[in-house]
Amino acid sequence: MNGYLEFSNKIYILDTASVAGKMESEGRLGGLFDFEDISNLFGMKTWEEAESEMQRLAYNTLLSKLGTSHEAFDFAISGDLMNQCVAGSYSFSNLPLSYVGIYGACSTFALGLAVGGMILNLRRNSRAVTLTSSHYCSAERQFRTPLEYGSQRTPTAQWTVTGAAAVALSGRRENSDIFIKDAYLGRITDKGIDDPNNMGAAMAPAAADTLISYFKETGTQPSDYDMIYTGDLGAEGAAILTDIMKNEGYILTKENYNDCGCIIYDREKQDVHSGGSGCACSACVFSAMIHKHMRAGKLKSILIIGTGALMSPQFLMQGKTIPSVAHLVHIVKEEGEEEKRI
Amino acid sequence: MNGYLEFSNKIYILDTASVAGKMESEGRLGGLFDFEDISNLFGMKTWEEAESEMQRLAYNTLLSKLGTSHEAFDFAISGDLMNQCVAGSYSFSNLPLSYVGIYGACSTFALGLAVGGMILNLRRNSRAVTLTSSHYCSAERQFRTPLEYGSQRTPTAQWTVTGAAAVALSGRRENSDIFIKDAYLGRITDKGIDDPNNMGAAMAPAAADTLISYFKETGTQPSDYDMIYTGDLGAEGAAILTDIMKNEGYILTKENYNDCGCIIYDREKQDVHSGGSGCACSACVFSAMIHKHMRAGKLKSILIIGTGALMSPQFLMQGKTIPSVAHLVHIVKEEGEEEKRI
Repeated sequence: MNGYLEFSNKIYILDTASVAGKMESEGRLGGLFDFEDISNLFGMKTWEEAESEMQRLAYNTLLSKLGTSHEAFDFAISGDLMNQCVAGSYSFSNLPLSYVGIYGACSTFALGLAVGGMILNLRRNSRAVTLTSSHYCSAERQFRTPLEYGSQRTPTAQWTVTGAAAVALSGRRENSDIFIKDAYLGRITDKGIDDPNNMGAAMAPAAADTLISYFKETGTQPSDYDMIYTGDLGAEGAAILTDIMKNEGYILTKENYNDCGCIIYDREKQDVHSGGSGCACSACVFSAMIHKHMRAGKLKSILIIGTGALMSPQFLMQGKTIPSVAHLVHIVKEEGEEEKRI
Repeated sequence: MNGYLEFSNKIYILDTASVAGKMESEGRLGGLFDFEDISNLFGMKTWEEAESEMQRLAYNTLLSKLGTSHEAFDFAISGDLMNQCVAGSYSFSNLPLSYVGIYGACSTFALGLAVGGMILNLRRNSRAVTLTSSHYCSAERQFRTPLEYGSQRTPTAQWTVTGAAAVALSGRRENSDIFIKDAYLGRITDKGIDDPNNMGAAMAPAAADTLISYFKETGTQPSDYDMIYTGDLGAEGAAILTDIMKNEGYILTKENYNDCGCIIYDREKQDVHSGGSGCACSACVFSAMIHKHMRAGKLKSILIIGTGALMSPQFLMQGKTIPSVAHLVHIVKEEGEEEKRI
């Protein structure tokens, strides 16, 4: 098995846009999102409608940033955590974009970038937009308990990010010098975790598997990248990943590795337990922070490993465990004529 | 907007395998499926586990037909109707294949073939397997009412196919002369239908939109193909599609058009109302019938348009309508040195 995908043309990231809720605006990236709504409702009546509206807002903000309209894009790739992935399918309803629905739980952001790359490899003169979202309130009532129950959360629990992010991809350079070079699609790993409040432990082995497979395939080491970001393992999962990688001979440190779930909130001041999670976690951290650092030249070659717990409340009630998957995307900034590290 | 994808190498269909339940085995294609279980449980305790087991059985049957093992495949592309698409993620758990989760409701089969094509366009020496499934009992209790209620079904209602099918794709010819030439990914159409028992009406406009877009893009007509198959519009939706197409100047007749939902059951003898539906409908009809006809040379150039109602029971309860999408795949049989019709 080999999930490596090298794009034969560079897949350029033209721009990104992000939308976030109250907890996120009060977190460490507060003020860096393009749109923040402390009501978490985004003008809608239900949490589910609010999540779909966030995707629409992220997409519209992206169009506005690019100074363009729907017609500039041929393809939309979207996925989210809600049953039937409705955030995307309702936000793109009746819009003139071909729609590719994907499902990868919290690995969706990375999977979307990879699928966008595949499409633009076939359609080099086209643009695609990838979107994802999650909402704390729609996720809690779907996956765990309705918020009104006021359930006590365990220390390993993660806080689903209320947010959405959109990324504009192009098969041509246009005005961007940041591109997706290659990707690695992961396999499904299930080590027997059955606690929906400890997703970090379920996902860490999948992240390790994908990361190690990618290093072996490309003959690289963690030190070959400016930073490695996992999607949302949280503090618990990130510690487990660091341990697994160390046992395999790969050293992850604070200097070369961080987890988007540990970045987005201020865990000392906010009651988010193990950190952030949800499809929007890595998507919003990329849009609000990582992409800006790359533009500024602070980061030139990074790996993002989206990690997804493919858990089903129904299957957990039927006694099953939580399978997980991790997809990796390698994003690079061109350095003038000569490109280093790639 | 243009969702056309032409594969630069031919994406060969090596073989297919199908699994089906009681109603399907008693239908018009009974005996043509590779595995039939009239208990609909496939050795499992719950309908959901049964659906996941069907995907595993279809995949294992495919491996057996090809005389190969997991190692022959690098990628699995799967999607289904169950929340969190669990049929695929549990059946591929801990297997050594990179896993791409997709969501397109009943358009999943066609979307999976298209995504498989994208991957093998980048990885020409690899193989991918695409899978999908649906189960009448898991679908009814998730989307409509638990079977135990004994609800009366309306004449426009469709019967979700209990089945699964797997398709082996390769970037190389190997021993196959049947390949995917091109595809068209559709946009999301919502004409305001809000009746979960009339999905044909919701999906027909999406099918028309994709089909007409494809004809215009390729400069072809229905008569350029041996057959056009829609995924599962049922009798109701197929009649609506035929009307829409006629108004646009494209004539669909019994000789050049059929719907997989009208093929799989015997509507005169079986109480399936408007016909079959579910992700497995087009997948099983392709595996059990269409692919066999292509192998035998009866069909040499066909279009399959997977149609998906991206409906959410929760959003319907919140007063929303049913968005739909249709994805098209063009499958061709090589005719010796000279290939006609392509």
